[in-house]
Amino acid sequence: MENLRIPGPTPCPHEVLQAMTKQMINHRGAEFSAMLNGVTADLKTLFQTKNDLLCLTGSGTGGMEAAIVNMLSPGDKVLSVSCGVFGDRFADIARTFGADVTSLKFEQGKDCDPDAVKKALQKDAGIKAVLLTHNETSTGVTNNLAALAKVVKEADKLLIVDAISSMGSIDCQVDKWNLDVAISGSQKGWMAPPGLTMISVSETAWKAHTASKMPKFYWDFSRAKKYLEKGQTPWTPAITVVYAMNVSLKMMLKEGMQNIFARHAKLGDMTRKGVKAMGLKLVVADEKYASNTVTAVWPPANVNPDNLRKTMRDKYEVVLTGGQGTLEGKIFRFGHLGMCDEAAIKDALDALRKSLPEHGYSPK
Amino acid sequence: MENLRIPGPTPCPHEVLQAMTKQMINHRGAEFSAMLNGVTADLKTLFQTKNDLLCLTGSGTGGMEAAIVNMLSPGDKVLSVSCGVFGDRFADIARTFGADVTSLKFEQGKDCDPDAVKKALQKDAGIKAVLLTHNETSTGVTNNLAALAKVVKEADKLLIVDAISSMGSIDCQVDKWNLDVAISGSQKGWMAPPGLTMISVSETAWKAHTASKMPKFYWDFSRAKKYLEKGQTPWTPAITVVYAMNVSLKMMLKEGMQNIFARHAKLGDMTRKGVKAMGLKLVVADEKYASNTVTAVWPPANVNPDNLRKTMRDKYEVVLTGGQGTLEGKIFRFGHLGMCDEAAIKDALDALRKSLPEHGYSPK
Repeated sequence: MENLRIPGPTPCPHEVLQAMTKQMINHRGAEFSAMLNGVTADLKTLFQTKNDLLCLTGSGTGGMEAAIVNMLSPGDKVLSVSCGVFGDRFADIARTFGADVTSLKFEQGKDCDPDAVKKALQKDAGIKAVLLTHNETSTGVTNNLAALAKVVKEADKLLIVDAISSMGSIDCQVDKWNLDVAISGSQKGWMAPPGLTMISVSETAWKAHTASKMPKFYWDFSRAKKYLEKGQTPWTPAITVVYAMNVSLKMMLKEGMQNIFARHAKLGDMTRKGVKAMGLKLVVADEKYASNTVTAVWPPANVNPDNLRKTMRDKYEVVLTGGQGTLEGKIFRFGHLGMCDEAAIKDALDALRKSLPEHGYSPK
Repeated sequence: MENLRIPGPTPCPHEVLQAMTKQMINHRGAEFSAMLNGVTADLKTLFQTKNDLLCLTGSGTGGMEAAIVNMLSPGDKVLSVSCGVFGDRFADIARTFGADVTSLKFEQGKDCDPDAVKKALQKDAGIKAVLLTHNETSTGVTNNLAALAKVVKEADKLLIVDAISSMGSIDCQVDKWNLDVAISGSQKGWMAPPGLTMISVSETAWKAHTASKMPKFYWDFSRAKKYLEKGQTPWTPAITVVYAMNVSLKMMLKEGMQNIFARHAKLGDMTRKGVKAMGLKLVVADEKYASNTVTAVWPPANVNPDNLRKTMRDKYEVVLTGGQGTLEGKIFRFGHLGMCDEAAIKDALDALRKSLPEHGYSPK
């Protein structure tokens, strides 16, 4: 069977796949309500929050759009802090809906520097909200969100965090770090298929929502909250993904949050050591900020990473993914989040080691 | 097993449920591309169109929002033609995003009258687009879309159609009737779970899209089209729902479009005759416009429809749904679309007949 090692969609456990063979039920009935309430409660535990948590039907990018249109008004000054494609996307969405965005960008492979954020906030007192990426999937960088959040909250700004590829896999403490809005997606560390985006909303965020004037209907947090109070969603939800998460979240709670974080740390470390042992370089500039859910790698000189991936897939059934944006055709990326163990990483590294010589490079 | 007789989500065939146990695959790989291209081609056949067809991850309401923000600019004059909750919702979305909406509303149970639409269009030459509902799920009315579309296109207006609960079940000829945008949802007649909205886009619609200034990112048709050209979606799609439709669409094509329409006509007729035989009244005013996917019924005087449904569910495992909007607590509704046969309708009618006496009414 294929070893799917991309940063989402991630493989689902057998029990989760089987859960989706359950027949459709009434999404306005008692059985679904109990399920949605259970999933919401489990998600709150794993988001480490007492804030409201909303499940909306859509991709992670839909969750990012939802956060923007529910928090901001056209003309609002927003600081976008970005170190890659997903940080840039967040800024693009805000601009599309009329926010006045100041971009603070960090070089490829670098993390977002809290001091630079502090300075940017001091420079313009009019900034209302800050957009941050916890784990930048395009470069394999995990920002020091605790430190970044501290700077943002000391300046008393609204803090909106893309935690799509970190939450549930890498420690992300919504309440302790005062994240006003934190977004994730079902196909990342949650061991479920794509189709749901999960978003926590703090009291401060609700206040911002009330004042927000960007147009919203499908993504409207108020509607979602009102329906959640009766165990429903305003619009027909992706029921099978709720079935899946109803099982996968229990598996996660059984493994234990700290154990999950430790497992991801171990798998990230194993991946990085493995590629470095072959003489390859990581995209992340300082390993202190290396992501435990995704590793981005520079191929050897003169090796086309997309051709290399093709060999790995065709010959060894290991599926990696390529670069995005300016890194398209230049790097390759390993996903090691959700259902992943040492055997899967070993298998993927073996495939890489065996494939490299076919592209003219002998690993160390 | 429960007889789920609501107008979506509808029961899925065994083969479709089993299809979702397939492991996740790379949504940017060849296997998924082939699947998405196949699903898109089959949907075009069943939409009876050569127009572009886009699959977006979201509920049907998301598809309605997508249609609005891709076709219109703030301030655009729009005629909303509504005979129920879903027609009103379409107008609400357009207003939310800044359209200048004129509402042409028809009474509960009535269909939308083409002559009235013609007059409304003559009254204001500035109207740019018309919003229509093919099948009004809240009252069980199927509008004469061919006649309505003719009036709209003779006036040379952009025609945006909510065909969520009709397409694939009731004849809806996108190309022949010149529907510029037609929207459906995977959980309706398509025998698949909720999570995808499918939208056809005509050449005229693409021109309107180019001129449209409402803010769009997640729902942006241009991005969806650009990615579809390589067999992908811009954002991670609801993969399992694509797996499901990849099977259910083949089943639909095997049954044959005309046979599907005939089956729905027969089941609609059977449902209506059944409830009338018990002395109950339909919500639809003129049976000529009765829907073949959903039947809305007035309960006998002094019978609470929600309590009646509870008896049907608890005692006979038949699940109907209630009224929406001003009809909440006043009517009940049968869904008979997608995977449905005469035995399922007979079972539901039997349950109704047996439940009515417990609520003080003896069926004729």
